[in-house]
Amino acid sequence: MSFSFGSIFRVTIFGESHGKTIGAVVDGCPAGLQICEDEIQAELDRRRPGQPLSTSRREQDSVRIMSGTFNGRSNGGPIAMAIDNTDADSSWYDANRFKPRPGHADYTAYVKYRGFNDYRGGGFFSGRLTACMVMGGAVAKKLLSLSGIKVLAHVVQIGDIQVDSRLIDDGQIEENAVLSPVRCADRGKSDQMVAELKRVSGANDSVGGAIECRVLNLPVGVGAPIFDSLESIISHGIFSIPAVKAVEFGSGFKLSGMKGSEANDAFYIKGGKVAAVTNNSGGILGGISDGMPLLFRVGVKPTPSIGAVQRTVDLRRMGNAELQIEGRHDPCVAPRAVPVVEAITSISVADVMLRSGCRFERLADNGE
Amino acid sequence: MSFSFGSIFRVTIFGESHGKTIGAVVDGCPAGLQICEDEIQAELDRRRPGQPLSTSRREQDSVRIMSGTFNGRSNGGPIAMAIDNTDADSSWYDANRFKPRPGHADYTAYVKYRGFNDYRGGGFFSGRLTACMVMGGAVAKKLLSLSGIKVLAHVVQIGDIQVDSRLIDDGQIEENAVLSPVRCADRGKSDQMVAELKRVSGANDSVGGAIECRVLNLPVGVGAPIFDSLESIISHGIFSIPAVKAVEFGSGFKLSGMKGSEANDAFYIKGGKVAAVTNNSGGILGGISDGMPLLFRVGVKPTPSIGAVQRTVDLRRMGNAELQIEGRHDPCVAPRAVPVVEAITSISVADVMLRSGCRFERLADNGE
Amino acid sequence: MSFSFGSIFRVTIFGESHGKTIGAVVDGCPAGLQICEDEIQAELDRRRPGQPLSTSRREQDSVRIMSGTFNGRSNGGPIAMAIDNTDADSSWYDANRFKPRPGHADYTAYVKYRGFNDYRGGGFFSGRLTACMVMGGAVAKKLLSLSGIKVLAHVVQIGDIQVDSRLIDDGQIEENAVLSPVRCADRGKSDQMVAELKRVSGANDSVGGAIECRVLNLPVGVGAPIFDSLESIISHGIFSIPAVKAVEFGSGFKLSGMKGSEANDAFYIKGGKVAAVTNNSGGILGGISDGMPLLFRVGVKPTPSIGAVQRTVDLRRMGNAELQIEGRHDPCVAPRAVPVVEAITSISVADVMLRSGCRFERLADNGE
Amino acid sequence: MSFSFGSIFRVTIFGESHGKTIGAVVDGCPAGLQICEDEIQAELDRRRPGQPLSTSRREQDSVRIMSGTFNGRSNGGPIAMAIDNTDADSSWYDANRFKPRPGHADYTAYVKYRGFNDYRGGGFFSGRLTACMVMGGAVAKKLLSLSGIKVLAHVVQIGDIQVDSRLIDDGQIEENAVLSPVRCADRGKSDQMVAELKRVSGANDSVGGAIECRVLNLPVGVGAPIFDSLESIISHGIFSIPAVKAVEFGSGFKLSGMKGSEANDAFYIKGGKVAAVTNNSGGILGGISDGMPLLFRVGVKPTPSIGAVQRTVDLRRMGNAELQIEGRHDPCVAPRAVPVVEAITSISVADVMLRSGCRFERLADNGE
Repeated sequence: MSFSFGSIFRVTIFGESHGKTIGAVVDGCPAGLQICEDEIQAELDRRRPGQPLSTSRREQDSVRIMSGTFNGRSNGGPIAMAIDNTDADSSWYDANRFKPRPGHADYTAYVKYRGFNDYRGGGFFSGRLTACMVMGGAVAKKLLSLSGIKVLAHVVQIGDIQVDSRLIDDGQIEENAVLSPVRCADRGKSDQMVAELKRVSGANDSVGGAIECRVLNLPVGVGAPIFDSLESIISHGIFSIPAVKAVEFGSGFKLSGMKGSEANDAFYIKGGKVAAVTNNSGGILGGISDGMPLLFRVGVKPTPSIGAVQRTVDLRRMGNAELQIEGRHDPCVAPRAVPVVEAITSISVADVMLRSGCRFERLADNGE
Repeated sequence: MSFSFGSIFRVTIFGESHGKTIGAVVDGCPAGLQICEDEIQAELDRRRPGQPLSTSRREQDSVRIMSGTFNGRSNGGPIAMAIDNTDADSSWYDANRFKPRPGHADYTAYVKYRGFNDYRGGGFFSGRLTACMVMGGAVAKKLLSLSGIKVLAHVVQIGDIQVDSRLIDDGQIEENAVLSPVRCADRGKSDQMVAELKRVSGANDSVGGAIECRVLNLPVGVGAPIFDSLESIISHGIFSIPAVKAVEFGSGFKLSGMKGSEANDAFYIKGGKVAAVTNNSGGILGGISDGMPLLFRVGVKPTPSIGAVQRTVDLRRMGNAELQIEGRHDPCVAPRAVPVVEAITSISVADVMLRSGCRFERLADNGE
Repeated sequence: MSFSFGSIFRVTIFGESHGKTIGAVVDGCPAGLQICEDEIQAELDRRRPGQPLSTSRREQDSVRIMSGTFNGRSNGGPIAMAIDNTDADSSWYDANRFKPRPGHADYTAYVKYRGFNDYRGGGFFSGRLTACMVMGGAVAKKLLSLSGIKVLAHVVQIGDIQVDSRLIDDGQIEENAVLSPVRCADRGKSDQMVAELKRVSGANDSVGGAIECRVLNLPVGVGAPIFDSLESIISHGIFSIPAVKAVEFGSGFKLSGMKGSEANDAFYIKGGKVAAVTNNSGGILGGISDGMPLLFRVGVKPTPSIGAVQRTVDLRRMGNAELQIEGRHDPCVAPRAVPVVEAITSISVADVMLRSGCRFERLADNGE
Repeated sequence: MSFSFGSIFRVTIFGESHGKTIGAVVDGCPAGLQICEDEIQAELDRRRPGQPLSTSRREQDSVRIMSGTFNGRSNGGPIAMAIDNTDADSSWYDANRFKPRPGHADYTAYVKYRGFNDYRGGGFFSGRLTACMVMGGAVAKKLLSLSGIKVLAHVVQIGDIQVDSRLIDDGQIEENAVLSPVRCADRGKSDQMVAELKRVSGANDSVGGAIECRVLNLPVGVGAPIFDSLESIISHGIFSIPAVKAVEFGSGFKLSGMKGSEANDAFYIKGGKVAAVTNNSGGILGGISDGMPLLFRVGVKPTPSIGAVQRTVDLRRMGNAELQIEGRHDPCVAPRAVPVVEAITSISVADVMLRSGCRFERLADNGE
């Protein structure tokens, strides 16, 4: 089940970095959703930040829908989507297959799959598979939009440069982050981040980052207690994104140092509805949405592929070795992970809502 | 499925804070595991730190095994365990049922369950249900011990007092954390934490904390890529523990500010085996164990039940209101959450290993 | 997952024939359903047909609800129910544990569980566990009744005595089958079946039977294609009842000999709605309900426990052996299986409806 | 989850009759299995019996592997396979879309999907999707062959012509059924069946049939009790094949009329191993394999598409109507369903074995 996520709305992904085709199958999308290749392509295109910040590999990423739509709408069956990989040069990987790259899954994959894994470009451990997540997420995002739900992610940290996200309003994310080559909503910080990435890249190094994600307009009462808590479901999905090593909701780890009297979000009546004065809980109480913006932060490790010579081992002769990775790689994963975080979050929320019996009433009633 | 966790090794929990009985059913434990009520009771007892740091409610927590064992060993069927609740005074909850306690699930539960939820003591949102997790975890822990796998959690932060866990070796956790009333492996810090809890408690307040968990002796190759990554499975479980709002693996959020050249854990040969110089990845690469200690950190919010008067709303008349919570409550959840984190981690790891075809060979071969 | 059934509405059962306690946990029942111990007990009592047709073992089967209800209604959490077993004499099983009873699971359990299984009374393979199915089914049945859905099973065959169920209308099942000691809706046939059971029992033998089940008032459009077809879900559950070896929907195996022109159920308009002239499909087309009564038939093998001496083997010395089973056993399983078939069918249908987003609107809106 | 089957070894299928592409994704196949497009193609080709018995639609069914293999072996990731549909003429379906074909899912799909379903050729309810099952099954079959397990299905009934399968030995199935245009192991009966199909076809009608399936060399102890019984898992899968309306294991419905003394399969020692004198249980006791051939029978309804004029309704004007289906259709589904039954059975058994921790040891140890 390793390549499937979701229960009622379930996304299955497939493919390898240097394989023939990558893709996603969305099972459980209600019938009647308007969705077309262009919309999915638009999300995919967001995974490609402007050069020279990103990998030089030219991903065409031209998606085709293989099944599941009819007359421009979901037909109730599985929506299968695919992208054909363009030919990749695997010679470096062939030459170095017994030297696991530090920070990558090469070593663990070699052990788990007894040497049968596709080692070229990391096989199915490659960030390339996040394109499949984005395909599935595009469908979920469109579905959520019918209920006015917005999922907005943006970069809040690259290396030492941090944005105080409390100063960023939702509109800024929608307007600025999209234009920023590093997907940062603060223009000044965005420029600093771009400069930092150039510096790091020039030093044959890479750097980590952090992403914040907000889910807006989620109704109160979405989610479930204990093992199906919103935190459980969302973190499950988010930690499946390669390079993610940390997730915190609301004030997250800051809560470890806070007092209850500070941390509790007091309720009050605002415009006839229940609201909270603060949002330390990130919009989730008892695993269930409380009407405040759902908010979480994702920590991303530095791109493990760096140009510098690194220590490693040779698995065949079981001795120490050195390794120098060729090719150009993104100096930071965070900007490209923004649409992936949105995709996984959209899938999670769509699934949770469908499980709770949500019918997305604005789906047209009649396909005739 | 909200109260079930795991796929092959699956734990289902039930009960409410003021209900009749709470319990757990473990389905999928291999036959032949020696397990008895005393062992489960011993884990449950660890949830009760010494007075006066903990809630005054006397939990007898005397567990009985209802099914699943025969002649002191698991028989291959579901192991059902239960604890009868002692009578609790629900009058405060009856009087305040329309005033949701800030930081608790009262409001979200009221909306989701349309007023039918058991509001007494938080119902099934109560920390009381973590006792059920511990019951299930006791079985998993015993199973893992057959392969020499140890799961060790300890408190590394309460409020401002932090322990640098890199200075704590595994032995210290096993020896000191067990004895510390706050489950902290550093004796000096433990004393400071105790003092802090008294201060906080005296001020009718509470405080947050953090727990580190280590899984030792996990073989290389346990886990799976993408949606079944160790991080995905473990975080899914850990975020189901009430009060947990943050989880990070290895160097976690610190990685956001690091360079790739620092963060990559270089491989080398140590005693004929592959090892890593550092462990920034927390023992997990590509979702799969790499032979280093699996390591993660859990952020716990302050106990939301505090003695001070708090702002809230009255859901029946939809107006602002005030609320003062009665009774004594743990000033910090972290110490009691230590065995719960171990339990959930044990369940996660046992399930992942069984899914990968691990047979726990040291189970006796023959029940005759 | 062997002891859990259902996806959104999920029932987990536990216990052994001679164990301490048997029970069921229902996770996923919507909040607000009126349900009490008496209603569950009433279903359990239906499993006990009048003496002398049934086993002499006195099952008290007095159910207690451990969790999940509050003020007489489901509270949204897991509904855990239990029955304590009364002391059973296990001496015959101790003496014969290495001689597997033909037609029972003794041999396969011995191999699968490497001798650690609870062999007393068949352990968790015992028909005793169908009481747990009935507990879970009682909740599902009550839920379905809110939408006017009725689940009616009745015995249509015992040995050579068969009832042509096309001659039995729904009212007869509700009125007659309940009173018949063999749960047969045809009074004359019921008397013949009773006589046959006495004959068979007197000859130290047993006999097989068949049960028909009808689901009435199911809306059109319930179910799903392919792997979640109503036939797939229902048969999955029904084949989990010990002794069931055959399931057919609508005209079932008769369709193998029919022409398409006979088998196709022609549509027509009846009272402004779509109806079908015949019901060879058993109310299911493409895995989805078509508005006709859902209809299936279940074949039950003869009780394997018979008084006659039987050939078997001795597993310890791996030689041929003989075996004579002691105690009294039901000469036919079918009558007692009637409420079990209803229970499993109710669970299946409730789960399928909840998965499709059904909200059972007649659940009261407000628990205050 | 409607288009996914299996838990550890999971097959997801997609596509529609007149859609662009159909396919299957196999997640959970162990790494190292030799599998190539030719082997999958060979299974697909078995779905196409010789003309003139089959539909005139030319299915090229040329499969391509999109992911999951590397150097001719499974790489541990999802194996995605696809077949592009050739252009189909949908004009008849466009003209008749509001007149549901009797015996088809047109009406139930129209209601469930509110008119958004792809009505052309039955959309994803079409028998066309059984090709996807066969793709997934080809992988499972190959995996099982590593343990010497064979899955053999053959036609035992078409209309009135029946084969007594007890007279057919395994070798005959392997030799004769493959050559028979109707997949029948008895040559004489095969000729009669061919003649019957011609007669039926000439009369613009169709006819039902039955298939027997045997699983040989299954080790003792495969399967699980209650809800994961072999009968539960296999029937779940088999009933997902369109047109299947009945499944019975071993002596099936015949057991309803038998005595326990006849039905019980007596054990004895044969060549140092436990064997059974008869096989009324179909090789399954308590849901677990007992070492005898696993045996079940599948009832298939007549092809609902017949040339004669049929009564139906017009869903738009809600009145009675008539319908005449154009095009040529298989007069009997059974022959083409033979490889589909084998496929689903193979998937079921592979999944059950992997869940029990089977490692298929003959997978090569080393991919280097």
